[in-house]
Amino acid sequence: MEDARYRRGLETARNLDPEGPGRLEAALKEVAPDLYRHIVESSFGDILSRPGLDPKTREIATVSALTAIGHAQPQLRFHLNAALNVGCTRAELAEVLMQMSVYAGIPAALNALYLAKEVFAERDAKGLS
Amino acid sequence: MEDARYRRGLETARNLDPEGPGRLEAALKEVAPDLYRHIVESSFGDILSRPGLDPKTREIATVSALTAIGHAQPQLRFHLNAALNVGCTRAELAEVLMQMSVYAGIPAALNALYLAKEVFAERDAKGLS
Amino acid sequence: MEDARYRRGLETARNLDPEGPGRLEAALKEVAPDLYRHIVESSFGDILSRPGLDPKTREIATVSALTAIGHAQPQLRFHLNAALNVGCTRAELAEVLMQMSVYAGIPAALNALYLAKEVFAERDAKGLS
Amino acid sequence: MEDARYRRGLETARNLDPEGPGRLEAALKEVAPDLYRHIVESSFGDILSRPGLDPKTREIATVSALTAIGHAQPQLRFHLNAALNVGCTRAELAEVLMQMSVYAGIPAALNALYLAKEVFAERDAKGLS
Amino acid sequence: MEDARYRRGLETARNLDPEGPGRLEAALKEVAPDLYRHIVESSFGDILSRPGLDPKTREIATVSALTAIGHAQPQLRFHLNAALNVGCTRAELAEVLMQMSVYAGIPAALNALYLAKEVFAERDAKGLS
Amino acid sequence: MEDARYRRGLETARNLDPEGPGRLEAALKEVAPDLYRHIVESSFGDILSRPGLDPKTREIATVSALTAIGHAQPQLRFHLNAALNVGCTRAELAEVLMQMSVYAGIPAALNALYLAKEVFAERDAKGLS
Repeated sequence: MEDARYRRGLETARNLDPEGPGRLEAALKEVAPDLYRHIVESSFGDILSRPGLDPKTREIATVSALTAIGHAQPQLRFHLNAALNVGCTRAELAEVLMQMSVYAGIPAALNALYLAKEVFAERDAKGLS
Repeated sequence: MEDARYRRGLETARNLDPEGPGRLEAALKEVAPDLYRHIVESSFGDILSRPGLDPKTREIATVSALTAIGHAQPQLRFHLNAALNVGCTRAELAEVLMQMSVYAGIPAALNALYLAKEVFAERDAKGLS
Repeated sequence: MEDARYRRGLETARNLDPEGPGRLEAALKEVAPDLYRHIVESSFGDILSRPGLDPKTREIATVSALTAIGHAQPQLRFHLNAALNVGCTRAELAEVLMQMSVYAGIPAALNALYLAKEVFAERDAKGLS
Repeated sequence: MEDARYRRGLETARNLDPEGPGRLEAALKEVAPDLYRHIVESSFGDILSRPGLDPKTREIATVSALTAIGHAQPQLRFHLNAALNVGCTRAELAEVLMQMSVYAGIPAALNALYLAKEVFAERDAKGLS
Repeated sequence: MEDARYRRGLETARNLDPEGPGRLEAALKEVAPDLYRHIVESSFGDILSRPGLDPKTREIATVSALTAIGHAQPQLRFHLNAALNVGCTRAELAEVLMQMSVYAGIPAALNALYLAKEVFAERDAKGLS
Repeated sequence: MEDARYRRGLETARNLDPEGPGRLEAALKEVAPDLYRHIVESSFGDILSRPGLDPKTREIATVSALTAIGHAQPQLRFHLNAALNVGCTRAELAEVLMQMSVYAGIPAALNALYLAKEVFAERDAKGLS
């Protein structure tokens, strides 16, 4: 049963970024190895794998929240990439980030857009949309 | 030109909640009357009226951000209603709020869901979906 | 296996507040019933049941975080009670909340202390320590 | 020496609101009595009594910060009153709160303005400016 | 009419930092070009250009809010410079940042002061006050 | 009397990190020298020196709050080291940070754990536990 949750979470996470789970596992290996499996099973396997929303909508929700939170830049970088990987366009993401200026203030929107600019340039260099 | 922005903003705002602009105008009349017009023109007219995202997606982005921010309950109430008014389902909103537990923590998700429960009950009483 | 996680989470949650899980289940029943089970299994069963910290220390960590977050008053109320239920004293909790003034500012500390005062009075009325 | 800090803090606090220190002392008496004296000595006596800024400017800085923080409504209520007591006008405060919409988002500004409206009405009822 | 708002906003923004608008336009050109004009018209033109507060007071309000928000370091850097450009002294800004320790906690105040130290050193190198 | 507060604060601060007070004094010397003494006297001398909680518990409370706040990385670095210096184990700190994922979200917990990983590596290089 645990394995089913882990496999489902891994599939969902890899759909967002094929190398994401491996990077997370490596990053947490020394400091909190159990958290890697917890995130895959619980966040990706139990929540993000639910059928009630399509992956694009889920990523837009996440990108909005991370922009508003403001101090989650590494996770926003992951999810800007993930959003593009599951079919959002750069223009859609820019709209979402601009809209955040209304609710979270101009600084939060600007800092997310500066990060998006970096993400877009990195993807250009890799030939990704 | 200003009038065009105001009319466009008013139309967008009324699409989210027909009575929303009137309530906002009344609430700000004594304390900051210019802010009412600024919000209609600038937030609704310039940002939320842009064609790059459909209204449902815009509302999901806003509901996500307000849930993560945590101290914007009156605005979250408005936008939970608005999201339903433009075609989101209650089940979709519940999915979005559950997902916020991953990024903003369980308390932020729970408080938004408790508010959604109130909003849903109020809409039941009015015969709204 | 799921049942083992659920039972472990339920035991941990009931140790904090015997009626807590029932209240949470009732509160989420209509709006997000799956989230109740997710919280019991994932938050209480996977994280809070881990042996690496004693319950008192876990509650002090949680009370500190919720005080600093500032917009999680219902959850802070639950965990102030939970902290007392697992053996923290009122004086220890007051020390923790006073200390938060250094890191999260005087207003966050004051609002948590005003809530603690209510919690303590409710417990006095019930004859609880 | 302590007494000098306490007296200086008390004078500064009473200049903002003659009844403020008494209310704070009463509110904290049971739950954290030492924090009352700490706030008077340390916040009011050491920081807010410093000569480098006039009281109006200090209150505008505080009102701005509390509006941006968003979950400090009781303290914002105190400082909206305090700002008026030391000579800010209602129009100046409304300008400050409107400006916060740029940096902290529209919801934070609106919630502060709704509170200011209550404060202004309470002061009208007392015949205060 | 739009041009009047844009010109008014540009003048206000250039008063804070002559090169600020150009840098913002360049930074947003690829990722969200419309946001540049929106910020100039709406934030600088509609809000910050209002006559109800002098520029020094507006900058002190903004610096306070950005310090309390904590995750807006690039914008705080801009506004520390802007505050000095419109006539605030370094000593006044240091007072404002110290005061934020009371409301937003010691860490928020310290991080803003560390940034102020950098800004002051950069201005020393340019011969600016 | 002031000297007693300063000496008590200095002793408490040096117990957390022998070089901490010196670094803070140097960092604030040019920009806000009075704040150094205020922090030693008021935060360390008046609050953190109180007998009601042992140093380990105080550090766990602080680490939890700073993790939840999210934008206080330099202070979190200081207190992760301080927690280890007063007897917390790395495993206990990892438990605390993992637990924060429940209350402040996965991103806040991850960013604190990435910082803890750096702190642990720096301590390995110095032969510290």
